[in-house]
Amino acid sequence: MELSQRIRNITPGGSDGWEVFYRARAMVAAGEPVIELTIGEHDIGTDPAILDAMCAAARAGHTGYAAVPGTPELRDAVAERLTARTGVKTARENVLITTGGQAALFAAHIAVADPGEAALFIDPYYTTYPGTIRGAGARAVPVAAHAEDGFQPRPEEIAAAARRHGARSLLINTPNNPTGVVYSRQTLEGIAEVARAHDMWLISDEVYDTQVWEGAHISPRALPDMAARTLVVGSMSKSHAMTGSRIGWLVGPAEAIAHLANLSTHTTYGVPGYIQDAAVFALRQGEAFEEKIAAPFRRRRDLAARLVAGQSTVRMVPAAGAMYVMLDIRATGISGRDFAERLLDEERIAVMPGESFGAAAAGHLRVALTRPDEELADALARLLALAERLAG
Amino acid sequence: MELSQRIRNITPGGSDGWEVFYRARAMVAAGEPVIELTIGEHDIGTDPAILDAMCAAARAGHTGYAAVPGTPELRDAVAERLTARTGVKTARENVLITTGGQAALFAAHIAVADPGEAALFIDPYYTTYPGTIRGAGARAVPVAAHAEDGFQPRPEEIAAAARRHGARSLLINTPNNPTGVVYSRQTLEGIAEVARAHDMWLISDEVYDTQVWEGAHISPRALPDMAARTLVVGSMSKSHAMTGSRIGWLVGPAEAIAHLANLSTHTTYGVPGYIQDAAVFALRQGEAFEEKIAAPFRRRRDLAARLVAGQSTVRMVPAAGAMYVMLDIRATGISGRDFAERLLDEERIAVMPGESFGAAAAGHLRVALTRPDEELADALARLLALAERLAG
Repeated sequence: MELSQRIRNITPGGSDGWEVFYRARAMVAAGEPVIELTIGEHDIGTDPAILDAMCAAARAGHTGYAAVPGTPELRDAVAERLTARTGVKTARENVLITTGGQAALFAAHIAVADPGEAALFIDPYYTTYPGTIRGAGARAVPVAAHAEDGFQPRPEEIAAAARRHGARSLLINTPNNPTGVVYSRQTLEGIAEVARAHDMWLISDEVYDTQVWEGAHISPRALPDMAARTLVVGSMSKSHAMTGSRIGWLVGPAEAIAHLANLSTHTTYGVPGYIQDAAVFALRQGEAFEEKIAAPFRRRRDLAARLVAGQSTVRMVPAAGAMYVMLDIRATGISGRDFAERLLDEERIAVMPGESFGAAAAGHLRVALTRPDEELADALARLLALAERLAG
Repeated sequence: MELSQRIRNITPGGSDGWEVFYRARAMVAAGEPVIELTIGEHDIGTDPAILDAMCAAARAGHTGYAAVPGTPELRDAVAERLTARTGVKTARENVLITTGGQAALFAAHIAVADPGEAALFIDPYYTTYPGTIRGAGARAVPVAAHAEDGFQPRPEEIAAAARRHGARSLLINTPNNPTGVVYSRQTLEGIAEVARAHDMWLISDEVYDTQVWEGAHISPRALPDMAARTLVVGSMSKSHAMTGSRIGWLVGPAEAIAHLANLSTHTTYGVPGYIQDAAVFALRQGEAFEEKIAAPFRRRRDLAARLVAGQSTVRMVPAAGAMYVMLDIRATGISGRDFAERLLDEERIAVMPGESFGAAAAGHLRVALTRPDEELADALARLLALAERLAG
């Protein structure tokens, strides 16, 4: 029985270089000792105090349908957080609570693009981006950021793509997954100018906003005249180690949020009330808690930088944020994919080939900083040794 | 800043007769004593033992990303349940766990229809149906079921609509919300024949499958050659009083489910693992538990039937299932909407106008059987008295 074109075309390229990930998972399942540095999952679970808050809310009876746009308490807590972090006055009406950042990304593209319209995104990209845009029925158009620019996108290339495709939106992510790059003020001002000039929505994925090691996170929503055309994607996953709880948000103009809340009624019917109560509790722990969750990644980024500095074959993309480092292995003469395959076979270490995140990251590896320091140091040392052998 | 056509058109008719619901909610919030018989929410919370299972799973560390298609344990438990209840051999590969039945409805329409293609649904309908189809970018085409047929749809009218619109799918719901009607074997065989003849997918919303008071629930997936073209929507909301936990499923052909799992990666990234563990626990409680949850609605249906039998102005649609009764108030000479407004103003009782569920239910009221028996009996007596006064 035939399925729709669009569902068959969400990921037309098949697994897109995720074979090494699936193979590593199978090896782990079979009991083989693999060091997994693949996906952005903390090496700690959700804090027991947050789970206690969730269970208390559930036992107190918050188990019925919650308000679809989010509970007033959580919408207010997110609004306060955005106001404090970005300086943009944000109210309850600007906030929609979503089933994690992924649901926010999907809903945002339904809201800004009609079927067949173009939506831009920056390559290298978080794996689901093009499929999310295609799943939402829009046309996914990549705009490459270049290794030689430290993966800061060039506004003039975005403008050219916007013009050529009549794009309705641009999706960016800073701090960036997979590169670890934090967009500079100059980059963001250039992007904002393009968005205004081409009357595009800017969808700004800021789920790593608590993981900034150098400089400061700048939300483009805070730039002149941008609050009216920016939808910010946020999440408790990375900042509060709540990946499995599937809770995030969209922040934007009140009229857009009202329509997006109506969309939520028809896609998820909201987020469990007891999880929202847990999120309110977690946000109230403040910045000290968020820094505690982020600290291991900062420490491990420094550890990776020190190890890479001790050799000359592999270069590390200057990582100012997020829980990954990206390693340039082009001097080995083989692709990121082939390197990752050999690393898994010969060293039982799993990392992601850059090619999994788009053509612009070819010849790179993404290493998730998600294992304890010693294990990570051992894995990186062996990765670098393999690179030296290959470079011969 | 302009939003997409499709998000602005999800509910083009505005609130669609839900004013009385929102007004009742506002009155409750203001401290007024309103008897609410509007939405399908149990008068009990989720069972503490289910919440204990959830909290135990969370505290044991099931807080990271869960497998996107669902945990193997829950997929197997749902497969076993469907096999046992319908006689259709169902495997893990036939099951996708979703963010409640609503996410299953939305995903099913993305899977079967491309933008602009027609998707049929039966009027009267559960409120979100047309918006769900439109949100998914398809064209929502109602096919009326008639009060004089006891709201059993006529297969020949479905066939005519399928032909006229080149429809890709038909969405049905039995036991039915809002009517309480359970489709007969004859109705379902006729529908199956139309689906086969017009090469349509059948999307079968069976979330009330444990609430059947007369006869038996028949899943159309069990009819000849229908498993290959049927997507069953299920949920823990009504059967296990887990409305707020947002957990449901889609069951269908393995190839369709694989594509739908890929869609989930791009829309929600799965369902919290600890909620899935709670659902496994809940399903293992077996039929006795499900009957305990359903029992009050059976009892209250009988209570409503007795009260209605004591007068001759209002007629009750023969309700063989679900947690609602539908009352025909056409003898009063006013619309369902006007009656519901007066009932709220004069008696502080909130019910839903039939018009909220489509043109076919005009002149009716939907009464949710979701308050304790005595309170419900008092409300129904006052409703019937108002009808008598109006009929004069």
